Order: sequence, then structure tokens, then C-alpha cells
Amino acid sequence: MEIGELARGILAGERRALARAITLVESGRADHRRAATDLIARLNAANHGRQALRIGLSGTPGVGKSTFIEAFGLMLTGQGKRVGVLAVDPSSARSGGSILGDKTRMEQLSRDRNAFIRPSPAGAHLGGVARRTREATLLMEAAGFDAVLVETVGVGQSETVVSEMTDIFVLLLAPAGGDELQGVKRGIMEMADLILVNKADGDLRAAATRTCADYAGALRLLRRRPQDPDGFPKAMTVSAVEETGLAAVWDEMTALAAWRRETGHFDRRRAEQACHWFEAEVREGLLARLRREPVRGAMAALGKDVAAGEVTASEAAEAILRDYLGVSGD
Amino acid sequence: MEIGELARGILAGERRALARAITLVESGRADHRRAATDLIARLNAANHGRQALRIGLSGTPGVGKSTFIEAFGLMLTGQGKRVGVLAVDPSSARSGGSILGDKTRMEQLSRDRNAFIRPSPAGAHLGGVARRTREATLLMEAAGFDAVLVETVGVGQSETVVSEMTDIFVLLLAPAGGDELQGVKRGIMEMADLILVNKADGDLRAAATRTCADYAGALRLLRRRPQDPDGFPKAMTVSAVEETGLAAVWDEMTALAAWRRETGHFDRRRAEQACHWFEAEVREGLLARLRREPVRGAMAALGKDVAAGEVTASEAAEAILRDYLGVSGD
Repeated sequence: MEIGELARGILAGERRALARAITLVESGRADHRRAATDLIARLNAANHGRQALRIGLSGTPGVGKSTFIEAFGLMLTGQGKRVGVLAVDPSSARSGGSILGDKTRMEQLSRDRNAFIRPSPAGAHLGGVARRTREATLLMEAAGFDAVLVETVGVGQSETVVSEMTDIFVLLLAPAGGDELQGVKRGIMEMADLILVNKADGDLRAAATRTCADYAGALRLLRRRPQDPDGFPKAMTVSAVEETGLAAVWDEMTALAAWRRETGHFDRRRAEQACHWFEAEVREGLLARLRREPVRGAMAALGKDVAAGEVTASEAAEAILRDYLGVSGD
Repeated sequence: MEIGELARGILAGERRALARAITLVESGRADHRRAATDLIARLNAANHGRQALRIGLSGTPGVGKSTFIEAFGLMLTGQGKRVGVLAVDPSSARSGGSILGDKTRMEQLSRDRNAFIRPSPAGAHLGGVARRTREATLLMEAAGFDAVLVETVGVGQSETVVSEMTDIFVLLLAPAGGDELQGVKRGIMEMADLILVNKADGDLRAAATRTCADYAGALRLLRRRPQDPDGFPKAMTVSAVEETGLAAVWDEMTALAAWRRETGHFDRRRAEQACHWFEAEVREGLLARLRREPVRGAMAALGKDVAAGEVTASEAAEAILRDYLGVSGD
């Protein structure tokens, strides 16, 4: 399919065009990469004015992320909204995909005509997954999706990556056993706009309420961020299994996004994110030279001499920079 | 001073030559950088066979790091050993130096002829501080120092940097109030070869013993690392103020280093570290192009268009890579 045709298909909301375009942005082939860049530039130039709410969702395994996404996604599609689901999975590079890898985890949502679920591509490094996810979000936005959920698993670096490509960041938690906070990294807490304590049902309902109160207390101790209206970041209980609290979550998300749009934070953040990705892509493109021949081979050979102590790290680096990368030391 | 002369001075253990050489490796000027690389290559080629024990030391503010370093350093110099002290201080980039910045903190040690204390240079980024510290360590080693302590403050990234340039990593802690472990990041715990609970004196003695037992228990839960003999990583109590436990710490360090030397882990680790720094310097040298004109200006200008949505991040990155960095997308 020709790029112009693909762009028209996406703007018309055709699923098949979207699926092909995502495959294109996932490809590492140089000609595909150029085509993907061209496609996204065309969609950008079409100035479609569509904005999906980009929602980052993090949570350690076991908190019920996929059950939540399925229930939340079905609630939205039930209202006639179109929902995309993507994943940034740092473990998939090694394991071949652990989150969203099995679409049957969200069986009902994956069969929904108004939902589009795409697992994290296996075997890619975090930088590659980040670009693909960011570009897939842009494609879904151009295709008229109302919300794009970007799922990740709580290991720090991937949270930062996801928060750099989303408008709202949600941390999903399970009720804690005692009155202890779970081992959530402070840095992730500080990213969160919403903390959702899941499993607020059956035997765990009371524990979920208590955990939610604990986090609400902890959130009050954090410094107020300029991008937050009163009451945010917010902690709430939900039950993905009983499908309770989900509409309230969407209401809070849209209220937060509306406030940020009004105050200019929303657009400013998207502009900053775009600059961030521009710079990240330049760095990544430059560093990619090190993975290609003849640099790669020269570095491997010289690395042996460095390990043997025959040449120092600085000497070896200077030689590679000068002889293979055209960088003189000034 | 000419480089050959400087190298001879260092190998002869002259303090003034060492001080000048460290100033050289701290400089960001291109000609100084080349001279520093040349100097370290010469010292390496002289193959002096001297090995200082490189000791990384981390601990949050308030645990008594400088008191410990002074007491520990003086014990070693009292045995006729020569001790270097350096710092990797990520906060100094902003604040102008917070650790080791005030030499009077270690008044006695700083006046000791067998000690050489150098604060973290202010205003440099972590990469620059890392290189300077690593190279200063090599200089001290060539000058015949027996131990080089590299101090850092517990914030995660700098610990990783320090552990990449040292043979032994020590975590210094204060006695905990209750029976709780302090908020030590798991990643830092996993780097530690020795955990020292300081302030095991006066009213805090019992708390220090309890804290030490807690950490000993926690260490047993971590997976055994191939580079550890039986009983390591180890938790011990010390009192920098009463100067107790310090000789035992040095004994454990030398025993650990001896075991690692015998089993080959010591040399293998140093070889890996050298390769790590080689690759890091190539990356850093390549990325430095982005901070120089005309790339820097072109990126700033194009960044404005990206922020305004007039051009996509990928398009802009492709233009910079192609037009300014000679990188084609393949």
C-alpha cells in the first residue's frame, strides 16, 4: 500500500490501515523507517485536530492490570468510544513478551470493534519500543481514537518512558496486607496523577479502602505540582472484577485533562514531550552508528586490548572517535 | 611541565606532580584532554604493577561518612600506607560541591603527608566527574597509593558509577531507630560487599548491633554472587568516633580482595570495567557533537518547530542526523 493511501485509510478510521501502519512503525528496516516518518509527517500535516487522551498505566504483576484494562476499555467502548491499548514492556526484550503478549488475557476487549490492542514487540530495546509506542499512539490519534492506554510494568525506567509519551499517568495497586505502603518507588509515586487501588471487592474491600487512605495521605505529603488542580494527584479504589469505580476514574481523567487544557499545561506538556523525543531520536540515531560495521568490529577488537591492559580506555576511545567516527577531540 | 616529566614525577610518588596531573584530568579543554590521555597511556605503558585497593563508599548524609573516612584513613596512614580520597558527587553539579567540598571536614587526614584528598569538581556532569575520578584513581595507583576511597552520596545513579570504578563497594549506615531497615535502595544493597553500621558507640551501641543483625539477615536473603567467598557480603559495626572496628574492616577488605585475586574475579572485573569505560567514552565523545555548533543551534531552532507541531519529532531528528551529523537512516 502506498503511503498516501495508508494515511487516507487511517484518517478514515480503517482498522486494516491502522494495523498495517503500526506494523510499519514497528519495523527496524531503513526503508520502512523512512516510510513511517513520512506517514506520520503526512498525518501531522493533515492537521486532523484529533486528540486522544493518552493514558499511561503502571502496576507490578498481580495487581490486575489486564483485568482493569479490559473492564475499563469495555466501559469506554460501551459509551461508543474508541480505545487503543499498547504496551511498553522492558522484559519482553528478553522473554519475548510478558505483558499484553497474550491477547486472550483481554478476550472480550480484543474482539471489540472499537478497541485496538497491540502487544509490545519482542526483541526490541527500550528505545525502539518507546519510539514504536509513541508513533503507534500518533497513528491511533489520527485514526480518531478517544483514548490510548499505554501499559507498562513497574520497574522504573519504563515508567519514565511511558510518562514522557502520555497525558495522564495512572498507578494501579493492590490492597496492601497490613497498613504498609507497598514498595512503590518514590519516583513512580511522583509521576502518578491517579493512584487506583484495585480489588476493592469481597474480602479485600476493607483493605483496599485502608490502602487508598494511606496513599491519599502519602500524596498529600508530596509537593504540589503546577500541573495539578486542587485534589490531584488523587487516590481512588476500583474493582475491575465487579466493574465498580471505573466511570468515576474516567470522569477524573477527563476533568484533569480539561483543567490542564484550559490552563495551557496540556499543550505545553505535549510540546515538551515532542522536543524530548526529537532529541532522544537524534541521540539514538547517532549512537546507532556504534552498532554498525565497521565501528562495531573495531570496538570489539580494541575492547580486547583494553581488557588486556595493553591500551587505556581513553586512548582506545580517542582512536575510535578519530578513526571511525570523524570526531576530533575538541 | 612536560608530560614525560609529569609521568616520572608521579611514578616517583611526588605529591606536586600528582596534584598537577589531577588538575589536568579534571580539565575540559581539548588540549588538556589529549595530554591527560597521553599521560595515562604512558603510566600504563610503564607497567608499574602497582595496584591500589579501590574502595567505593556510599552512605546518605548524616551517617558519618567524613568522620569514618578520616578515622579509617588515619588508621591506614598510621600503618605507613598511602591513602587517596576522591568524591563522585552528583549534587555538586548544581550546588557547587557538597561532599568533600570542605576539606576541613577531614582536617587531620588532609594534613597527613600520606593522604591525598581531592573534592569533587563543581559544575561538571556525572559523566565528566566519573571520568575524572576514574583517571585520578589511575594516577594515584601509579603514584604507589595503597588504597583509594571514592566517596559518593546515596542517590542511585552515582553508586552505579562508583561501583564501576572500584574493587570493593562499602555501604555506610547509621543505626536505625526501631527494628526497621533504612530506606536503602535494593539496587545499592546488591552492590555492597560490606555494610558498615557506624555510630556503634554510647547510647547508639545497642541500636547499631541490632541494625547490623538486621542487615546481616537481609544480606543472607540475597542471591549468592559468584565474586563472593563464604560470609560475603558482610555486615559489621564500627565507630568512627571511638575508632573501633576500623582495623577489622581493613582486614575484611584485604581478605576479600585476596580471595578475588586468587579466583581471578579481581582481574576479570577490572578488565570488564576498563571495557565499560572505553565504550562509555566513545558514546560520550559521540554525543558531545550535539553540544557543539552548528548542531546545537540547528537543534534548538528545529526544536521550536517540533514544539509548535509544524514538524514531527522523527522528521526533525532525521533532518539533523542527515544534514548535520552525516548519518543516513540505514
